[in-house]
Amino acid sequence: MSSLNPEIDGHSYNRPKSGAETPADVKAVRRARFEKVFDQIAEELLTYVKGEGMPKDAVEWYQKVLYHNTPGGKLNRGMSVVDTVEILKGRELSEEEYTNAAILGWCVELLQAYFLVADDIMDQSVTRRGQPCWYRVPNVGNIAINDAFMLEAAIYYLLKKHFRSQKYYVDLMELFLETTFQTELGQLVDLITAPEDHVDLNKFSLEKHHLIVVYKTAFYSFYLPVALAMHMSGVEDKAAFDHALKILLPLGEYFQVQDDFLDCYGKPEHIGKIGTDILDNKCSWNVNTALAHATPEQRKILDENYGRKDSTCEARIKELFSQAPISIPERFEKYEKESYEKINALIEQVDEEKTGLKKEVFRSFLAKVYKRSK
Amino acid sequence: MSSLNPEIDGHSYNRPKSGAETPADVKAVRRARFEKVFDQIAEELLTYVKGEGMPKDAVEWYQKVLYHNTPGGKLNRGMSVVDTVEILKGRELSEEEYTNAAILGWCVELLQAYFLVADDIMDQSVTRRGQPCWYRVPNVGNIAINDAFMLEAAIYYLLKKHFRSQKYYVDLMELFLETTFQTELGQLVDLITAPEDHVDLNKFSLEKHHLIVVYKTAFYSFYLPVALAMHMSGVEDKAAFDHALKILLPLGEYFQVQDDFLDCYGKPEHIGKIGTDILDNKCSWNVNTALAHATPEQRKILDENYGRKDSTCEARIKELFSQAPISIPERFEKYEKESYEKINALIEQVDEEKTGLKKEVFRSFLAKVYKRSK
Repeated sequence: MSSLNPEIDGHSYNRPKSGAETPADVKAVRRARFEKVFDQIAEELLTYVKGEGMPKDAVEWYQKVLYHNTPGGKLNRGMSVVDTVEILKGRELSEEEYTNAAILGWCVELLQAYFLVADDIMDQSVTRRGQPCWYRVPNVGNIAINDAFMLEAAIYYLLKKHFRSQKYYVDLMELFLETTFQTELGQLVDLITAPEDHVDLNKFSLEKHHLIVVYKTAFYSFYLPVALAMHMSGVEDKAAFDHALKILLPLGEYFQVQDDFLDCYGKPEHIGKIGTDILDNKCSWNVNTALAHATPEQRKILDENYGRKDSTCEARIKELFSQAPISIPERFEKYEKESYEKINALIEQVDEEKTGLKKEVFRSFLAKVYKRSK
Repeated sequence: MSSLNPEIDGHSYNRPKSGAETPADVKAVRRARFEKVFDQIAEELLTYVKGEGMPKDAVEWYQKVLYHNTPGGKLNRGMSVVDTVEILKGRELSEEEYTNAAILGWCVELLQAYFLVADDIMDQSVTRRGQPCWYRVPNVGNIAINDAFMLEAAIYYLLKKHFRSQKYYVDLMELFLETTFQTELGQLVDLITAPEDHVDLNKFSLEKHHLIVVYKTAFYSFYLPVALAMHMSGVEDKAAFDHALKILLPLGEYFQVQDDFLDCYGKPEHIGKIGTDILDNKCSWNVNTALAHATPEQRKILDENYGRKDSTCEARIKELFSQAPISIPERFEKYEKESYEKINALIEQVDEEKTGLKKEVFRSFLAKVYKRSK
């Protein structure tokens, strides 16, 4: 799965105060500051492991697991925790506040690392973020399963170390644990609906796609970072969390639909990869929309060519996707417009005074996602 | 890994009040009562999953995951939570107390199920508890990785549902999370010390064995059930938990050393399997004790024959284990006697009045383990 487009920054509290910077400089400084916190938490985790008497080779192994799998992505999920805390507090963060928000952000990235290490084994993927998948690194193999577990365990070690004295400590733990379960449910539905080696389009539907996307992506990528930031910022009103969820799940869904659309229609030089959803029998928005609108003749072509690991079949599907009445590009344009309007309407309903929320939190997310091409 | 010997029951609060029962009847009734609680929690988990809108095939899949992997073992870890609560309270439990203790017991079994599903993939094992390993069931394969995650997630769903209003709720969560991390550390050291396909006895030592056994087995199999029961029984004194740990880690280590010894010297009809530790390059107590005492000639035989997937090599190692000065059976007898005395001395130091602990908790465990032949 791709990550949020980091090009557009909704605000700029992280901006250093002096010197003439280009937007690229600002982005690099912001990222470097966030990355520095990873060095701190990796050090803390390794100190713990050493303190438990683990041998040198095990400590070094864990260090490699942490560094190979956690940083190196776009870090949008993690950095959005910091951004959201800044927006909610409405001011620059103190050094301590920044570090704590960044630690929660890294916990989101650790959660994602845990999922991705496992997903790559389950999907038999080859590369991730331009380097070999962890399980394909020499001498790793299936030990990667236990390594994934240890990426997850790191989250709760860090929460205890840094948040145990906060009254929202138990909320943080529950939020991570519940989001984990939800993501795993989404992954399960995806795995049994769209196994790579057995095509059965009767299992697909736009409802199934909605369910997979919300559970597998939206909860952990959109709701989790904001909900963490809300806890850190003193929001306690349950209705505020409900409203955030009501906005962020459709936003996450919209993001994933874009991702699916771009897999087929994005330029490889923009999206940084060559899409393989058709070859891999993925339960994507494109194929589900096609199934919903195909004529019987078109349906036959879909059944015979989708998910076939054959570039001629793939080309037939690509061609079909653009044909009426399937017309994916037109339908996507319509979907995008409607989603944007619907999400904006939900944002307008936020009662800032009552909930302690700010519309800017969601506007900033939406601005990062709307009409992205990568 | 084998489980505790359930033959000797330290006490009998679970015994039904009327009718003439044999010890086997009592055991069966006790187990059946515990198993009934599993049906309840499986139902709760499936109701949750249905309530989240998951499709029928996903709900049925999760049901199979739960039932294939969680019950079916000896259930000693789980049932020891109930036993310990009974001993600490010093009376029969109310229906509600029983159910809550049994739920915590099943959470220990779910934790073990999570580890075992993953371990079997990592070890490429074939059978478990007399049936195919979950990942080898048709259509499962590597989906078993996500299934393992969902066994773990069940624990925290159940803790929240049944214990959220208890003041020790956060202690239960932390205990499970920390024990999970410890077990994964033990698993990591084991995996990188004794890979099945690369023999290097220089990596082995009795110290390494001690570390693996304590982290991979003793924390979750011995300390966790007792510590859960202590929380449920109102024990709050940190010194009490420390003292329990001080007894239960050596007890768990002793248990695992027996397990290793019996893998080579136990009768297959007693231990219910044919040991394969020598063939599989396992970092067992036997080989580490042999390495500690081997003459240079014996060491050469060890290097050339251990972990070789060859029954002639295995036979040479078996022969060597019994030869002086290695003499595994004699050394095991000495180890067993010393462990028993050491653990008994630690039990005697328990200050029942001050800590709220009872010596009987540990005596009951030790009685189940001492001089077992299976």
